[in-house]
Amino acid sequence: MQTHDPKALSIAVVGAGAVGGYYGARLAQHGHDVHFLLRSDYDVVRRRGFVVQSHDGDFNLAPDQLHVYNDASKLPPVDLVIVALKTTSNAALGSLVAPMLKSDTAILTLQNGLGNERYLSDLFGAHRVLGGLAFVCINRTGPGEIRHTDHGMIRLGEFVGPSDSPRAQQICAMFQASKVHCQVLPDLNLGRWEKLVWNVPFNGLGAALDTPTDVLLRTEDGRALVAGLMHEVVRAARALGIGLSETVVNHQIERTRTMGGYRTSMQIDRQERRPMEVEAILGEPLRAGRAVGVEMPLLEMLYRLVRLVNSGNLPG
Amino acid sequence: MQTHDPKALSIAVVGAGAVGGYYGARLAQHGHDVHFLLRSDYDVVRRRGFVVQSHDGDFNLAPDQLHVYNDASKLPPVDLVIVALKTTSNAALGSLVAPMLKSDTAILTLQNGLGNERYLSDLFGAHRVLGGLAFVCINRTGPGEIRHTDHGMIRLGEFVGPSDSPRAQQICAMFQASKVHCQVLPDLNLGRWEKLVWNVPFNGLGAALDTPTDVLLRTEDGRALVAGLMHEVVRAARALGIGLSETVVNHQIERTRTMGGYRTSMQIDRQERRPMEVEAILGEPLRAGRAVGVEMPLLEMLYRLVRLVNSGNLPG
Repeated sequence: MQTHDPKALSIAVVGAGAVGGYYGARLAQHGHDVHFLLRSDYDVVRRRGFVVQSHDGDFNLAPDQLHVYNDASKLPPVDLVIVALKTTSNAALGSLVAPMLKSDTAILTLQNGLGNERYLSDLFGAHRVLGGLAFVCINRTGPGEIRHTDHGMIRLGEFVGPSDSPRAQQICAMFQASKVHCQVLPDLNLGRWEKLVWNVPFNGLGAALDTPTDVLLRTEDGRALVAGLMHEVVRAARALGIGLSETVVNHQIERTRTMGGYRTSMQIDRQERRPMEVEAILGEPLRAGRAVGVEMPLLEMLYRLVRLVNSGNLPG
Repeated sequence: MQTHDPKALSIAVVGAGAVGGYYGARLAQHGHDVHFLLRSDYDVVRRRGFVVQSHDGDFNLAPDQLHVYNDASKLPPVDLVIVALKTTSNAALGSLVAPMLKSDTAILTLQNGLGNERYLSDLFGAHRVLGGLAFVCINRTGPGEIRHTDHGMIRLGEFVGPSDSPRAQQICAMFQASKVHCQVLPDLNLGRWEKLVWNVPFNGLGAALDTPTDVLLRTEDGRALVAGLMHEVVRAARALGIGLSETVVNHQIERTRTMGGYRTSMQIDRQERRPMEVEAILGEPLRAGRAVGVEMPLLEMLYRLVRLVNSGNLPG
């Protein structure tokens, strides 16, 4: 990616569900040349564009303000690929992203969980890859219809080398100029694991028990399970050399208390009978911890429980 | 309890749900003087007696063949008290059983899980107490209506002293003479823990996930969870000096495979939104294992998950 005027960037968005659709639409709204690769919503978005209800301001994106495709081979090479595909479809990334790459194309994954930067690096080279954490409450309410109810910040950084490279700063500036609050992470890995401390218990238990966050925090047993899982994730991170403090556990529990009842993506996937991101959110952290000799009995059991729920074998 | 003709015994049944109702009705059918302490089914059973569909032969027990009460203080002292109360109501046992005791009255608990003999011993003296395991597929299909679909054997023994006392043998003979297959256990504690090896995973996971036995055994994750929990229970038993072999794990899994889909009592309690026997089936074995220094991380997590499910805080 060349370091030129951020306004001139050409961008591809792979996987334009709620997250990809929202951020891509914000960039297109602010004058970027955005190419959306869509599947189920292709026909509707091609005809009507995007309709976005956002707590940062509603807007519509007309069909002539964007480019939509349902075939990856039709996209032009771009400066930046934003990957917002559900991680359960990662196996498709090789063929989807390849046609969009120039020699200096950067790839930013906004996907959930652990292992996505590594996966893209193995496919396309680590030098291309940045990771971003999207802290956002957002839903797809219909084809091409997005409701953004809270937050919205992206925190991003390089996968290899100094996290806060000029390229990372340039992408961040592009988001900032497009009404998306953005921070460059001093350490992407630290950011990922800090988010896992939250995602592992609340997504995992939410999926296993079909339970929102407030119910988990309402009982002694729920709090003990949440805290126990968080401590396991912190121990794994520390064994991996990541400077995460145990104080993050209480901090995140207290912060979650103020959120009210929140259904995580994995709980929603369970309710909608869609595939859950079990490997990215539970399996990858478990394997990463094990690889450095950390026992994670709670996470191991949770992983198996959620895989069982996700297997489609349960009645009801 | 005097060692006289088993035909002459007077018997009280405390908690006449499916298990207490069935065995009590069998004893009354075969000429014993059986006194049923009932709560919700009192009026119906007083008027109509019991209607039993059984794979060992259907029968009706007319109102003049039994005695029913809804007030424990009205029962006469008896030779034998059979306790078949749900363990979640154990706190009531003190006042319920006391009026039925003579100096030599024996108390046989047929309740689920661990700790019931100890509880009765603390109340009434260990010398009175025997424990029995009911291996039976049975349901209460309506007030005074019982459907006995499979098995039915009772295995029993003394709580203290040699398990196979003359008293234990006499009670066993009484069941055998009343169309109930019965064995005297050489070691009650071994029998209890062997049953826990099965009950902990299948009741616990069945309650946590609302899953019958065949679904748990259909996936690798389910089998790993079942086997992992069984191994923890075996380790706890062995640390307690009980001669249980690890081979029981494979044996019980293979046996369960042949059973088809079976809903455990705790899964049914979840579905009917009734209190589950969490402490007797999960909490007591966990505390017993911990008391002798055995780590049981899977059981500890399962216990908390099921307590959370049982807390009434979950939606749906």
